[in-house]
Amino acid sequence: MPPEPFFSGSGLDRADLLRSRPERIAELAARGDARQLAWADGLPALDADGRLSWEPVREPALFLGLDGDSPRFASLPASAAPAPAFALLAQLDEQDAPLFACALSLANWHLRHGHCSVCGQPTGIVRGGWSRRCGGCGAEHFPRCDPVVIMLAEHDGRLLLGRQPHYPPGRFSALAGFVEPGETIEAAVARELREEAGIQVADISYVASQPWPFPSSLMIGCRARALGDALTIDFTELDDARWFSRDEVAAALTGEEGAAFLPPNRYAIARTLLDDWLAA
Amino acid sequence: MPPEPFFSGSGLDRADLLRSRPERIAELAARGDARQLAWADGLPALDADGRLSWEPVREPALFLGLDGDSPRFASLPASAAPAPAFALLAQLDEQDAPLFACALSLANWHLRHGHCSVCGQPTGIVRGGWSRRCGGCGAEHFPRCDPVVIMLAEHDGRLLLGRQPHYPPGRFSALAGFVEPGETIEAAVARELREEAGIQVADISYVASQPWPFPSSLMIGCRARALGDALTIDFTELDDARWFSRDEVAAALTGEEGAAFLPPNRYAIARTLLDDWLAA
Repeated sequence: MPPEPFFSGSGLDRADLLRSRPERIAELAARGDARQLAWADGLPALDADGRLSWEPVREPALFLGLDGDSPRFASLPASAAPAPAFALLAQLDEQDAPLFACALSLANWHLRHGHCSVCGQPTGIVRGGWSRRCGGCGAEHFPRCDPVVIMLAEHDGRLLLGRQPHYPPGRFSALAGFVEPGETIEAAVARELREEAGIQVADISYVASQPWPFPSSLMIGCRARALGDALTIDFTELDDARWFSRDEVAAALTGEEGAAFLPPNRYAIARTLLDDWLAA
Repeated sequence: MPPEPFFSGSGLDRADLLRSRPERIAELAARGDARQLAWADGLPALDADGRLSWEPVREPALFLGLDGDSPRFASLPASAAPAPAFALLAQLDEQDAPLFACALSLANWHLRHGHCSVCGQPTGIVRGGWSRRCGGCGAEHFPRCDPVVIMLAEHDGRLLLGRQPHYPPGRFSALAGFVEPGETIEAAVARELREEAGIQVADISYVASQPWPFPSSLMIGCRARALGDALTIDFTELDDARWFSRDEVAAALTGEEGAAFLPPNRYAIARTLLDDWLAA
């Protein structure tokens, strides 16, 4: 069985054929069982059980889809959250994670796209919140979803992990970087490992993927075999990078005292990649 | 060995650490061995051998990277191509395909992002062409790369293929659709097959990926096992969808007279998926 990262799953039925039918969306929004996502400081609000909070529909700007038969909407929050919500993720129920990611990415995209990138004129919401159209030149703009490769490089039974400057003390995790125009997933994995750690790799394989709504990434988790273990670290991107043995990774994941590093959190696909590697 | 779609490969050394050093990029552009990509009608110009055409550096707007030691740049074309360049792809040398995709996607992104989506003011090129910054609010904007899932669903030894309205007569190909915010690759595969063909799937697996510069997609090729073969076709998206036997797929790929369908071209990852499925 392939591993299942946090944020996996289908979330709602997106019912996207309805997006092009504004009269149907208005009917759905008027129904008694329709609900609107509650925002708190620019983030989806959670109840005491870590589930998303819903309220009566007042401003159905974004049509999220159908929960069984019940229509689900979101307004646009007044402003974006001041910082990524990692503390909130620790409380979030896994079942609501895909919808949390969807609503947050979509809302933040709208907040940053009130103008047309082609001509600068104001844009307005169309397609039930799944696009914006320019009132000036008519250009249509769709939400972004930015592919990012995140990968474990292995050499002789050891894994390469790195530290980004913003990590808490002791944390090491998988290296990562945006896929650029003109690249395959595999080319991006090889480039990032070469640039950030100075290693050449082969046998790149896909493991799992995860949406990551800070602001709108699609994390694509991979593994690769390093052809050597000599590192040339790019210190403009990383604080440090090191090879860790299987025993060191196991101790870190079980939270042993004195473990060689602090592992990524359960909601990060890097953790899924480590769990999967250790189980193999 | 995983299959290698057209547009695979590393292309140039992108040397992306240099992007944040404008003085180094200016030095590179002034070198005698520096070259600039030639455009023809908004598309990279090809020579008689299907290789990219290069000319002396006059307007080094985009730093594409290093070809061995030789710096490579592109200007912005005067306007976007009037239509996707499928005829040109038939002539394009595979070795230059990744760079063709990179330059075309990047240039077209610039042509559509002269204004800031946040505030509407004009933006200017920064980071050697790999970003634009707003002269008004200072927001930085990065090139788009839009993940798209494209997949073969299999049932009892037969493959599901579909026809989009714009295909030439007889062409059938893999179904595809954009990954949306909040989705994994696997969730997008399952959703698209449910929406477009009315089938439920399991055992979704990744096969290969390919950049597709019309305008800036990352095609993520997958396979899935259909749980049944009854189809409910979404005729707003597809002209038709059908199951094809292994013999029918083999006859189509070898170009037999009277084959059941016309297969996708060699430069489309759908063709790679079909070749790979037949070889398995």
